[in-house]
Amino acid sequence: MKNVAANQAQRDEYYARISAKNMAPLWESLHNLVPRSPTSRCAPAIWKYNAVRAEIMESGNLISAAEAVRRVLVLENPGLRGESSITQTLYAGLQLILPGEIAPSHRHVQSALRFIVEGEGAYTSVNGERTTMRPGDFIITPSWTWHDHGNVHAAEGGEPVIWLDGLDIPFVRFMDAGFAENYPEAEQPILRPEGNSFARFGYNMVPVRHGHLGKTSPIFNYPYDRSREALDHLYRHGELDAWDGVKLRYVDPTTGGYAMPTMATFMQWLPAGFQGKAYRSTDATVFSVVEGAGSVSIGKERFEFGPRDVFVAPSWLPVRLFANDDAVLFSYSDRPIQEALGLLREERMAGADGLGTLSVEVV
Amino acid sequence: MKNVAANQAQRDEYYARISAKNMAPLWESLHNLVPRSPTSRCAPAIWKYNAVRAEIMESGNLISAAEAVRRVLVLENPGLRGESSITQTLYAGLQLILPGEIAPSHRHVQSALRFIVEGEGAYTSVNGERTTMRPGDFIITPSWTWHDHGNVHAAEGGEPVIWLDGLDIPFVRFMDAGFAENYPEAEQPILRPEGNSFARFGYNMVPVRHGHLGKTSPIFNYPYDRSREALDHLYRHGELDAWDGVKLRYVDPTTGGYAMPTMATFMQWLPAGFQGKAYRSTDATVFSVVEGAGSVSIGKERFEFGPRDVFVAPSWLPVRLFANDDAVLFSYSDRPIQEALGLLREERMAGADGLGTLSVEVV
Amino acid sequence: MKNVAANQAQRDEYYARISAKNMAPLWESLHNLVPRSPTSRCAPAIWKYNAVRAEIMESGNLISAAEAVRRVLVLENPGLRGESSITQTLYAGLQLILPGEIAPSHRHVQSALRFIVEGEGAYTSVNGERTTMRPGDFIITPSWTWHDHGNVHAAEGGEPVIWLDGLDIPFVRFMDAGFAENYPEAEQPILRPEGNSFARFGYNMVPVRHGHLGKTSPIFNYPYDRSREALDHLYRHGELDAWDGVKLRYVDPTTGGYAMPTMATFMQWLPAGFQGKAYRSTDATVFSVVEGAGSVSIGKERFEFGPRDVFVAPSWLPVRLFANDDAVLFSYSDRPIQEALGLLREERMAGADGLGTLSVEVV
Amino acid sequence: MKNVAANQAQRDEYYARISAKNMAPLWESLHNLVPRSPTSRCAPAIWKYNAVRAEIMESGNLISAAEAVRRVLVLENPGLRGESSITQTLYAGLQLILPGEIAPSHRHVQSALRFIVEGEGAYTSVNGERTTMRPGDFIITPSWTWHDHGNVHAAEGGEPVIWLDGLDIPFVRFMDAGFAENYPEAEQPILRPEGNSFARFGYNMVPVRHGHLGKTSPIFNYPYDRSREALDHLYRHGELDAWDGVKLRYVDPTTGGYAMPTMATFMQWLPAGFQGKAYRSTDATVFSVVEGAGSVSIGKERFEFGPRDVFVAPSWLPVRLFANDDAVLFSYSDRPIQEALGLLREERMAGADGLGTLSVEVV
Repeated sequence: MKNVAANQAQRDEYYARISAKNMAPLWESLHNLVPRSPTSRCAPAIWKYNAVRAEIMESGNLISAAEAVRRVLVLENPGLRGESSITQTLYAGLQLILPGEIAPSHRHVQSALRFIVEGEGAYTSVNGERTTMRPGDFIITPSWTWHDHGNVHAAEGGEPVIWLDGLDIPFVRFMDAGFAENYPEAEQPILRPEGNSFARFGYNMVPVRHGHLGKTSPIFNYPYDRSREALDHLYRHGELDAWDGVKLRYVDPTTGGYAMPTMATFMQWLPAGFQGKAYRSTDATVFSVVEGAGSVSIGKERFEFGPRDVFVAPSWLPVRLFANDDAVLFSYSDRPIQEALGLLREERMAGADGLGTLSVEVV
Repeated sequence: MKNVAANQAQRDEYYARISAKNMAPLWESLHNLVPRSPTSRCAPAIWKYNAVRAEIMESGNLISAAEAVRRVLVLENPGLRGESSITQTLYAGLQLILPGEIAPSHRHVQSALRFIVEGEGAYTSVNGERTTMRPGDFIITPSWTWHDHGNVHAAEGGEPVIWLDGLDIPFVRFMDAGFAENYPEAEQPILRPEGNSFARFGYNMVPVRHGHLGKTSPIFNYPYDRSREALDHLYRHGELDAWDGVKLRYVDPTTGGYAMPTMATFMQWLPAGFQGKAYRSTDATVFSVVEGAGSVSIGKERFEFGPRDVFVAPSWLPVRLFANDDAVLFSYSDRPIQEALGLLREERMAGADGLGTLSVEVV
Repeated sequence: MKNVAANQAQRDEYYARISAKNMAPLWESLHNLVPRSPTSRCAPAIWKYNAVRAEIMESGNLISAAEAVRRVLVLENPGLRGESSITQTLYAGLQLILPGEIAPSHRHVQSALRFIVEGEGAYTSVNGERTTMRPGDFIITPSWTWHDHGNVHAAEGGEPVIWLDGLDIPFVRFMDAGFAENYPEAEQPILRPEGNSFARFGYNMVPVRHGHLGKTSPIFNYPYDRSREALDHLYRHGELDAWDGVKLRYVDPTTGGYAMPTMATFMQWLPAGFQGKAYRSTDATVFSVVEGAGSVSIGKERFEFGPRDVFVAPSWLPVRLFANDDAVLFSYSDRPIQEALGLLREERMAGADGLGTLSVEVV
Repeated sequence: MKNVAANQAQRDEYYARISAKNMAPLWESLHNLVPRSPTSRCAPAIWKYNAVRAEIMESGNLISAAEAVRRVLVLENPGLRGESSITQTLYAGLQLILPGEIAPSHRHVQSALRFIVEGEGAYTSVNGERTTMRPGDFIITPSWTWHDHGNVHAAEGGEPVIWLDGLDIPFVRFMDAGFAENYPEAEQPILRPEGNSFARFGYNMVPVRHGHLGKTSPIFNYPYDRSREALDHLYRHGELDAWDGVKLRYVDPTTGGYAMPTMATFMQWLPAGFQGKAYRSTDATVFSVVEGAGSVSIGKERFEFGPRDVFVAPSWLPVRLFANDDAVLFSYSDRPIQEALGLLREERMAGADGLGTLSVEVV
């Protein structure tokens, strides 16, 4: 074997030389490139609704929905400032629409979810059907579908409405696969009565010749009253998990899979006094509190939460959930991507203290 | 409707205020976040083998395989310097292993492909089976499988061997889902005779109780002689596509899908004189020239290529392939990710000049 | 070429000789074995509820549920007498359970559906969960699950209850794949509260770690009030098909496929005055009338139908449905088998008279 | 509870009365309809090639291929005489084609396999491509594809050629789903060179835009030399199963599933002296001996077998295989149907005597 004891100066000279040819020595970066476990730049964080609501409302004085196209305050992860990202792959924002406003119609490859936080009167139209937005509803804008939002006039009961937008913007950007178009008019034409999609697909029955294609659920509004009813039943049936409470996943009834191809969505119930055991997983997750108050520990951080707060748990940091009173949490993550590509890994901590020894569970 | 004609100073003050709360105004960045079509930082580039072979060989004097763990020169895209990426999602490197060396055993979540470029004598071991590496072979290291590489001594015919490594390192990093481990010894134990995986899965027959799970093909060496034979047959059968020549995709015989969950791999034949029409797609692609010479236009760039050169075509830039003599190209991209998530989009240009009007083909 | 003009006597002698060796000449039967189109022994038929109800009730005087195990009158297709079949592959029977009775617990490979026809007070238990049976409910007993039926005492409101049993008995017999076992006691233990399966899977949400396997829907009671509500919505939304009226398919929410692996189930709405166009398909279908009256033409037969009647349409005979008043029909067929194996073929007749020229539609 | 002690005379009178209404009492037949385990009419049987070859050759004097359309001796199971069935669901026949003959082109819904038993010179054409038939080759005619067979003239080397036909005729008949058509001419036009399908799909690579649809493998000739090579490799690699020897399943490279939607096909190697342990399964199986001699026990029967013999093992009877010299067996069954519908059940006997206690293994 040759003598390979080159000194550092020789190496540095070599590195400079190959750099000019767009090359770099792997051995200087291998440990960073192939880490022993995830080392995310994403940080735990919380946006207290009390602390941001005033700013959201103030945006209504600053710019109109029509001018803004979408009047949204992006929730930027403290570890990812300037990237419009709440996790590496996902975007979150709080959108405000005032009575009488229209956010004009467009479409894009990015999938979007709307989780309604506050107010009555708003509606969204997707692919020719309109749905009314009520707090707690989970509403989908599938990839590449025309969509516009509106709010009835105050005289008709319109209130300022705020919702959480969740999109896969960072992921689609990273994949270099984004396309977008504006609709020629502010609002698309309405082709079907409200509730049609739910009637076709929401009753555990589907039209015999439905022809639904694509990777997104044809139900585009999963109303809160039904989601909450399911959780309530199951809690009363004793279905309480020590890590998750009662946790349900929204499904696409045409596949049994996730409601969206790139984002999983969940709603969970934590009964008053719940002290969840710790778990961690590779899908960083965004939570929106629907009801109740409690706290969450994420890695070494601990946040108190109340209604309408948003918090984020990064990849692989242990998470524990605690409830003071009965609490309902909505959440979303990039789990469908991780699962489709064989990347998802989870662990549930089995120790009596909720931490203790790890129970490794590779999914 | 309120007067929303805030002036820029008011807005700037507001932006500063919300920034302190980890928020940003979407309306200032919407066009960048949701572009009309992909605007990649990835640039067209070529690495001429003649221009880099000396540096690769020189690395053998600079560091041993054992010290380097993997003695590789990373091919860094000029638009993504410092990120160890040849495209947004993929990594490429040229690895050298000298006679008598061992690159020690480890495993990681990242999937790897090895496309052999030059030399005889090297072998790789994956999950208890060894395979000999010959130029043109496409060899797989599935996610989370132990693997180590070696080369026989010069006295036994070992030559310096160089191969192209293709990994999904940037993608797994972006997903915050990477794990890795070192094997306690330099080489893992060999449990099965060479060729066993191919005998079990390579003959269009599989063992009745094979129990193969996972998302990666159980064939881990697709030898060049067979791949070339298939291309040659098809060319003689008249199967020439005006855009691709004769292009085959490597398959996982247990699913019919891609050989790897995150990377598609292809081999194509361009007959002498071939002047391919232009196409573009959202999956940026890395090419390795196996035989023959020709040229490629990528967007506004044009590169001459010869044997063992590596070039990269970014997302959505039109690509045209031209062959001076019969040419064989290996290539890989993130197409399985794009397809799994509904992001892939392709266009083939139908004009007589190979460019002309677009024939939109959303996949 | 040899002279092959053997005379019939020579052939007959030969046929006798090879018959002794368990062989037969294909050329004498080829046209029957490989027919130009289906030539089923199954005949169109109707069982008028008025005409059979008395006999069903009489069976309650003849034998107890306990002695009978299942007190059912099998509906035998007139073309398949003695085979306990309503179509080639499917079984239908009308089961009676009296107040205070129990039909003892057993399990079998055959899948079963119960479509409730008349009466209040009965319940069925499947795999540890009980569900109340109400007219119009579609209830599933999945393959190989313990199940028993009961009826509360008359003092508690129990009435004689009659339901339509649909099973794949002929199919499983033909496949030589039937197994069965009796439970050691008359009733299996109840492990979960009533409604638990629906709460877990019926709300377009599912438990995150549900672990449901197998090929049958985990919802085992699809209640009539919800099915009817969906049909009613869609009819008011204008979703009327010229052949089917408004027709919905029951789905397994974990797959989007049929609720059972061997039997498809449907419910459809025919508005008063509906005159359906003709269609035919290779899946012979059993109908149970829920509400309303009308008529059906099947091949050259025409039957008037009213509430609770059962009728059967064989493979490939043209079917037309007519409604006098708003009618609701439940139906089941072996469509999942036909689809899984690539056998299903359908045609919808496009003529103005509802018959006319065929519009071939190979599925 | 009512007194239900009706006497037999009362019951008989009742049975006659309901019979007139196409009804029958389930309780008199329940045990037969829902048996404790399969009770097939299908019997173990063998057709010794020595004993039937003369008759097959004689058929060549009795009728021409053109007149017969298909000159085949159907192998009728002794338990299913008159039904043209070798198992409940499958058909087998030995077809003879003489030099210079053509068996005219037609197509049908029934899927067919040809396993070549003896002779050189024959060929078959499927969907525009011709393939030469050689002993040991497994050749497919997919459902609804045009196909015709021929044999070159004796002067060109044509010999009488005999093959085993395997079809799903009884199954398609039972499903009432058969359609057939004759081609207007004796032979269909040839559109592609011989070997094209194999070149496109046989090399563990597929054309990037292959567009292959349907449920049948696009490889339509799996040649014996390759199948035998795979078995030989694996035997030398020590892959010997105590029940099966070395057993491989033919796969569709576009799905990883069975080569045909209704029939599984296998080839297995039994080394000289092999004494297989007993197993049983619900898929009755037809075997064709390619090489070697041995014996098989099926239930209480035992048959000696030699080259070209055909034998059949019914559902759920224990099977043991014994080899005197190295033996190769081809086999087919309805396993894909059983698996698709959740019906397949298998057991492997674990006792030292090859029978002993059952090791239940529900698949």
